[in-house]
Amino acid sequence: MDKKEIRRAMLKILDQDQVLADDLDVMYYSYDSSFLTKLEKVDPDVVVLPRSTEQVQQIMRFAFENGIPVTPRGAGTGETGGAAPLSGGIVMDLCTWDEIVEVDVANMQVIVRPGVIHADLNEHLAGYNLFFPPDPGSSKMCTIGGMVANNASGLRAVKYGCTEQYILGLEVVLPNGEVIITGGMKSKAIKNVSGLNLTKLMVGSEGILGVITRIRLRCWPKPKARGIVMAVFPALDDAPATVLDVYQAGILPSGVEVLDQSAIRAVNQFKPEIALPEEAEAILLFEVDGNPASVDWEGSNIADIARRRASQVEWTTEPERMTALWEGRSVTATAAARVRPDGSRVFAGEDISIPLSQVAETLRKIRALGKKHGVAVVNYGHIGDGNVHTAPVIDPENPTEVEKVKKLVHDIHLLAIESGGSTTGEHGVGAVRRRYAELEHGAALKVMQAIKTALDPKGIMNPGKLI
Amino acid sequence: MDKKEIRRAMLKILDQDQVLADDLDVMYYSYDSSFLTKLEKVDPDVVVLPRSTEQVQQIMRFAFENGIPVTPRGAGTGETGGAAPLSGGIVMDLCTWDEIVEVDVANMQVIVRPGVIHADLNEHLAGYNLFFPPDPGSSKMCTIGGMVANNASGLRAVKYGCTEQYILGLEVVLPNGEVIITGGMKSKAIKNVSGLNLTKLMVGSEGILGVITRIRLRCWPKPKARGIVMAVFPALDDAPATVLDVYQAGILPSGVEVLDQSAIRAVNQFKPEIALPEEAEAILLFEVDGNPASVDWEGSNIADIARRRASQVEWTTEPERMTALWEGRSVTATAAARVRPDGSRVFAGEDISIPLSQVAETLRKIRALGKKHGVAVVNYGHIGDGNVHTAPVIDPENPTEVEKVKKLVHDIHLLAIESGGSTTGEHGVGAVRRRYAELEHGAALKVMQAIKTALDPKGIMNPGKLI
Repeated sequence: MDKKEIRRAMLKILDQDQVLADDLDVMYYSYDSSFLTKLEKVDPDVVVLPRSTEQVQQIMRFAFENGIPVTPRGAGTGETGGAAPLSGGIVMDLCTWDEIVEVDVANMQVIVRPGVIHADLNEHLAGYNLFFPPDPGSSKMCTIGGMVANNASGLRAVKYGCTEQYILGLEVVLPNGEVIITGGMKSKAIKNVSGLNLTKLMVGSEGILGVITRIRLRCWPKPKARGIVMAVFPALDDAPATVLDVYQAGILPSGVEVLDQSAIRAVNQFKPEIALPEEAEAILLFEVDGNPASVDWEGSNIADIARRRASQVEWTTEPERMTALWEGRSVTATAAARVRPDGSRVFAGEDISIPLSQVAETLRKIRALGKKHGVAVVNYGHIGDGNVHTAPVIDPENPTEVEKVKKLVHDIHLLAIESGGSTTGEHGVGAVRRRYAELEHGAALKVMQAIKTALDPKGIMNPGKLI
Repeated sequence: MDKKEIRRAMLKILDQDQVLADDLDVMYYSYDSSFLTKLEKVDPDVVVLPRSTEQVQQIMRFAFENGIPVTPRGAGTGETGGAAPLSGGIVMDLCTWDEIVEVDVANMQVIVRPGVIHADLNEHLAGYNLFFPPDPGSSKMCTIGGMVANNASGLRAVKYGCTEQYILGLEVVLPNGEVIITGGMKSKAIKNVSGLNLTKLMVGSEGILGVITRIRLRCWPKPKARGIVMAVFPALDDAPATVLDVYQAGILPSGVEVLDQSAIRAVNQFKPEIALPEEAEAILLFEVDGNPASVDWEGSNIADIARRRASQVEWTTEPERMTALWEGRSVTATAAARVRPDGSRVFAGEDISIPLSQVAETLRKIRALGKKHGVAVVNYGHIGDGNVHTAPVIDPENPTEVEKVKKLVHDIHLLAIESGGSTTGEHGVGAVRRRYAELEHGAALKVMQAIKTALDPKGIMNPGKLI
């Protein structure tokens, strides 16, 4: 169907300010934060900004009847092209539908529309002594809808798990425009084992099964206290060994982050005043939270355990000192981008998940792969659950370097799978990791495809993604 | 197909001791622990006890080719008829396949075959300072495979969630005999967001999508300490109000149990030496766990909060005293069965899940429903997450009383849904709650059916269950 016709149809459903059709406007929606999809951008025919379930239904009915691809989109902070409209069609931007519908304190849950920003939600919940634990790095930008679609997580997944753990129910508009409510139509229950678990099937489905239009989230009591332990290790292998000893002592920190030598050097180069010990092969940062007595106990015990192997350990609950200790980690992503004055960090191969037992070996292999392909790589990430962030730094305008990084990233993805891990621990598959689906899932991929076909027989929902 | 032919076919696949065909043997498999399915028992044609994936595949291929129903079964402790072979055919008893394949301490996970008993697994894991948190009442009998198929939970779900939260990957034999591995074919990763989440779809699917033949479970560090707070309330409403205040204080206990007046009286009648205060309308039991400092802080704070409303509060970490305080709760299920010398407790309507805000009102309504139908009902359960156990007591040999209890249970199920809850918080749907599927799920039921059809086009897997 001609794009003018599609736009006219959208204007029958939506107000003028909810339909974007200018060339510049639609171009902005041709990519997300991923590097690889930016290389092959496709403009959508139209961008729509629905703000009601009924509007989403009408858009989907039209798209279904006419076989037009629909790509749902949150804030576009995804690193995998999940929101890139590979086949054109309609991009459905859900950011302006950002209502916090209800905070139900008595039942420890909140109901939101998909466009609510993560940081805004937690700021709002803090007023009720509640919080939504997952904490993506893009907290100030990313939407809850996007987090659900990608099963996002972050630093605190070690103790608190990923987004899926908190999703009690969803309203989803199916590809044909029908609306379903998962987790019980009128339910406010926290526990519910009735029926197939469509809620958890939808979480992480990256928009290929329908449009998420309402989210019922479980919240947790907001912890009263927090503490940070920093430990510096002369040898890389001592970092994962220390993490394991902490677990063996019965402690599950809210987060465990690692900077390897490449990250330490990047940080020092970027902000010399942070002055991380250059000779160290790894720095670990533990975050503990809970009640004040527990934080003291866990922090001091982690510090004791770390001292067995570390050359330097510090532990604090003092807010300013915590910020100072955490600063090295906070600036790593930015620092990584500056290891070459003429280079940029590209988001590709940035998100592998590997068994804890393989972390040290895998970081060494990634270093070797970087050398082999002639690309600088900075490594850091959520060592506590094996989710490592690798940051290749190249000149993205240089086609030779782009080709090099593509090869490097492919090798990193294969390494992750060979190491008993996954190509993605939190950012998703999207467009850029789909080629590994068969290698990761084998025969299970056919089952995923059968489910996709059962729910989206015309294949209009976010085509070219996930499976 | 004639049952002799089915038996002969099974003997070609399995050893003689893995095929049960005697009338008495198969009769034992015509029911599980539920009351309502015992009233309408159907004998299977044959019972098989496979002990390898290959055997399960061969059985499924035969069943698929010949359109024979297959009902997977764990220990038969289910309360909903999930393992009752409503249409005859093959019962697949997985209890003898009880291998703990691997405890991977470094990666905090364990791989088991479906027949491993829950208590045995935790005893084994304790040797590695690990534990698998869900704790069903049937711990000493139920299998991990059954727990996964039913998404089981128990006392500790308040803090630790249900079984699904710990399942990292599954091996599943599909209805056509193909085998898939969910969560990544070779993965030992803790985080993995690649592909549709088939793992979580399979958890709680009650055997209607395939046979679970291997389970990769995440474990947690075993908590070092534990404490119990008991609080006695003159007024029922003060119990949920106190639970909410505890959450608001930033505390998430590992368990919060309630006994209402009916349960208090049942316990005293059964064991007068426990001497619970008869005039109380509710008793709350809080369990806290974690590091010793945290347990002290949480226990004493919960006790302080409870004192605002309770007539009596006690808090201890002393093992013998903990057992004594917990005894009332431990004997409730047994005590409920004895409130009538000529009666038995029947497991029906025993498992509703309601919002915390509705607990007091719902318990009062259940009391009224019991009176209306002339059936004694004892109430207790996991108030912390709204999962209430109602225990009707009747003479199960008396057809009039059976009819009465059926009506009562139907009313309790409807009440749960009307109260914004679910008919089942942990025991599942099985055969006995299938009639409420449309009321609970509406249009979502069609999506569940579409997924069922996509995976099991001949409808041979556990027919008549869940959806």
